[in-house]
Amino acid sequence: MKPEALAALQARFAEQLSTAPAILQAHGRDESHPTVHPPHAVLFARSETDVVDALGLASAHGFPVTPFAVGSSLEGQVIPVQGGLSLDVSSMNAVLALEPGGFQATVQPGVTYPELNRRSRPHGLFFPVDPGAEASLGGMASTNASGTGAVRYGTTRDNVLELRVALMDGSVIRVGSKARKTSAGYDLKHLFIGAEGTLGVITELTVKLWPLPGHVAVLRGHFPGVEAAATCAVQVMGAALSPERLELMDAELMRAVNRHEGAAYPEAPTLWIELASSSAVGLGEALGLCSEIMADSGGGGLEVARSAADRAALWEARHHAYYALGALYPGHDRLSTDICVPLQHLPGIIGFSRALAGQEGLHASFVGHVGDGNFHVLFHAPPDDGATWARIHGVYDRMIGEALALGGTCSGEHGIGLHKRAHLAREHGDTLALMRAIKALLDPSGLLNPGKILP
Amino acid sequence: MKPEALAALQARFAEQLSTAPAILQAHGRDESHPTVHPPHAVLFARSETDVVDALGLASAHGFPVTPFAVGSSLEGQVIPVQGGLSLDVSSMNAVLALEPGGFQATVQPGVTYPELNRRSRPHGLFFPVDPGAEASLGGMASTNASGTGAVRYGTTRDNVLELRVALMDGSVIRVGSKARKTSAGYDLKHLFIGAEGTLGVITELTVKLWPLPGHVAVLRGHFPGVEAAATCAVQVMGAALSPERLELMDAELMRAVNRHEGAAYPEAPTLWIELASSSAVGLGEALGLCSEIMADSGGGGLEVARSAADRAALWEARHHAYYALGALYPGHDRLSTDICVPLQHLPGIIGFSRALAGQEGLHASFVGHVGDGNFHVLFHAPPDDGATWARIHGVYDRMIGEALALGGTCSGEHGIGLHKRAHLAREHGDTLALMRAIKALLDPSGLLNPGKILP
Ligand SMILES: Cc1cc2nc3c(=O)[nH]c(=O)nc-3n(C[C@H](O)[C@H](O)[C@H](O)COP(=O)(O)OP(=O)(O)OC[C@H]3O[C@@H](n4cnc5c(N)ncnc54)[C@H](O)[C@@H]3O)c2cc1C
Ligand SMILES: Cc1cc2nc3c(=O)[nH]c(=O)nc-3n(C[C@H](O)[C@H](O)[C@H](O)COP(=O)(O)OP(=O)(O)OC[C@H]3O[C@@H](n4cnc5c(N)ncnc54)[C@H](O)[C@@H]3O)c2cc1C
Repeated sequence: MKPEALAALQARFAEQLSTAPAILQAHGRDESHPTVHPPHAVLFARSETDVVDALGLASAHGFPVTPFAVGSSLEGQVIPVQGGLSLDVSSMNAVLALEPGGFQATVQPGVTYPELNRRSRPHGLFFPVDPGAEASLGGMASTNASGTGAVRYGTTRDNVLELRVALMDGSVIRVGSKARKTSAGYDLKHLFIGAEGTLGVITELTVKLWPLPGHVAVLRGHFPGVEAAATCAVQVMGAALSPERLELMDAELMRAVNRHEGAAYPEAPTLWIELASSSAVGLGEALGLCSEIMADSGGGGLEVARSAADRAALWEARHHAYYALGALYPGHDRLSTDICVPLQHLPGIIGFSRALAGQEGLHASFVGHVGDGNFHVLFHAPPDDGATWARIHGVYDRMIGEALALGGTCSGEHGIGLHKRAHLAREHGDTLALMRAIKALLDPSGLLNPGKILP
Repeated sequence: MKPEALAALQARFAEQLSTAPAILQAHGRDESHPTVHPPHAVLFARSETDVVDALGLASAHGFPVTPFAVGSSLEGQVIPVQGGLSLDVSSMNAVLALEPGGFQATVQPGVTYPELNRRSRPHGLFFPVDPGAEASLGGMASTNASGTGAVRYGTTRDNVLELRVALMDGSVIRVGSKARKTSAGYDLKHLFIGAEGTLGVITELTVKLWPLPGHVAVLRGHFPGVEAAATCAVQVMGAALSPERLELMDAELMRAVNRHEGAAYPEAPTLWIELASSSAVGLGEALGLCSEIMADSGGGGLEVARSAADRAALWEARHHAYYALGALYPGHDRLSTDICVPLQHLPGIIGFSRALAGQEGLHASFVGHVGDGNFHVLFHAPPDDGATWARIHGVYDRMIGEALALGGTCSGEHGIGLHKRAHLAREHGDTLALMRAIKALLDPSGLLNPGKILP
């Protein structure tokens, strides 16, 4: 960034702008990326006007701008690889309107989904997309995050009604509608959802809220193999039980949780099924049917939890998976795949991936939002063990090749960021030119989060 | 169309091309438009290659191309206002794959949703978007149709996983994924959904199928006023009952049905609520809760139907609304609005619209997918009664002004077509330039369905 540019930012933003080394470092890395690329400055935006003015100065002075919210994305999305300004929107965290009768809330982009849920619950409502980390709604919209609730309620994409977006040309546009459905003109909203801050900066979102289900229960059971558990998940989906969540963890991860938590879970592939109903009896019947399906597919050790406290206890191992693995291999770097395939191919591709990792002598743990056909393989190795990382990337490449051959996608939820650009080219080679043309329309100088998504 | 162009089309397509006057006429009108604009020729495409070649000839010779499927759209979308070729895809009607385990089907664009349902039902599955007319899946995707099932299952947009689209540059692209969710790059799929054939021609769709619900029942009751019925609908939505359908008809339409069918329904605003559950007892409980809500909001004459035959009988009046009104006023032209507002504003805008129509002495009937905040006002008048039509359009304009002020949209499901372009400009004036730029990227010569959507 040129000194005049920095001076102009300082003149406009005063103490909202930081060049403190610790702040720059914190905005220059994420968990997924080995090296730090600090920005030249960090702006803590407080309003849409701040965002518009920052983009205006970027246009005028030609420096890159990378939006930053919570920084929980996993593909290097927030790393300002070309320096410039990190535009931190986490302080834009006001809930602007909550309309219980309209099942919707309008928020600034830095509001996190746990915060939105704290505000919605007293109205008997909730925001169902739950990616795990304390992500912001603007960040979730920008990666189209999903997680455990998507099997019943869809992804962030499905739950965003309207956006306000600040563009590089200085304008702020409104896309979508606060109405639950619209057929008015070209749908521009979905261009900005999943765009990882490369097309515009989201300054406001109106999202759907859902009524909290009346009666909820969780079932947990373990299986002789991961494929058997995945097959069970496919059958549950076929039974029209419409589960709230449907999650799988393999033996390896259960073992990691046992060691990390001092727990004694069966170290076997484990499936969680959360069911809900407006009626207690209805829920009981659904649980009965679900238990039968689990037992028929070889599930054992079935446990059921109904109270909120018991449900939380039953889910606990699942919540600790990611960090337990980290604790077990301190100092290792990790990589989490997020392939998603049509549901009928899920058991097959899990088997394929396990066999491949085994052949290559890799340590690979499986966890999945299996009702969607979406599963994560967690690889890890010491950062400097180049040979192992080469094998990991080789296996990952072949897994993606298989997923694409089955009609699936290289990214079910994490996005492309820095790391998956080559995979995007394999998946959507025929539309890269169109994606580039749209990028050029909205950001002709290529200043918005450069180096992301497009290879 | 120049003679060389027609000759080139004839050379390539032989008997698939028609210039028979009756065929031209049938492709030059729809129910919504007073005058006929026949195309110069109609091509009955049988394959993606046919579509690609037709677009190639259009590019080479500079003639317009308007895709045509069933022709059930209501805003003049299929009318070739600039002549040229009507590209009829209704013969591209093969179900290419039905994957029960993946809850999806891949179809050619001319497959109708009733046909897809006939094919899916033996597998215990169905396609839930139901706009009423025997529309094609390509046409429904192109208008983002919805109808009665949207309150539970979303619109066509929400149920399309992947598209193949033939573009004006001669290429065929694949957008979206057969996986249930993807975060891989810019979402181009949603640009083509709702684009009314102005950006490309859909040659293949993969859509979601859903498990048929186990136990279904329908409740019908009548209310002292339309606003009371709408308020009841809002309360049902708030009770987390997740209805399959939630439909409203006003007294005027009930009267029309009585006359048309020789029936004796109470001539009062009537609400239908369809509920489903995986359990019979659960359904019973939900019905109980729902009846209470209806009674509390002033609903009377509650009837419940459980068997398929009884349900069909209970729904009958709703199915005949549109045609009953037509039969009652033979020779009248009709106009159906499709405004959609955030749910909390539905009773208010219905009241506003009724009052306005009353002040202007207009005959206006109300019918609505009220769980979505979407309602139709059916106006009618003799085609040559210019004064009445001017008052109708005046009222319609003010209704849309009110809807936009409430955060709603001028089109919940019918699209923009020819007739609502000025309304689109009011709703999305700030993004028209971007819409035009995207149109220019994909169709630089403006040959694809010219005159539609963009004002
Ligand atoms: C332990 C763990 C578990 C996870 N599990 C899941 C999971 O199950 N499912 C899942 O989907 N994800 C998961 N994630 C990933 C993560 O939570 C998401 O990617 C999240 O959506 C990012 O939100 P954020 O607020 O952290 O955004 P950031 O990481 O700060 O930003 C993400 C991207 O959005 C852009 N951006 C941020 N705000 C805006 C804005 N206002 N306007 C425009 N662009 C903006 C940024 O430039 C960046 O490109 C997990 C992450 C962790 C650490
Ligand atoms: C009695 C009645 C009731 C209705 N009720 C509803 C309702 O409740 N909800 C609702 O949403 N709609 C309703 N509609 C409207 C209608 O059914 C929809 O607009 C329908 O989606 C159009 O489908 P189609 O196959 O008839 O397409 P067409 O009318 O033939 O075409 C519609 C548009 O799509 C384009 N198109 C068609 N096929 C393709 C393709 N393969 N590729 C690209 N473009 C293409 C055409 O050029 C045109 O612009 C109703 C219509 C009638 C007559």
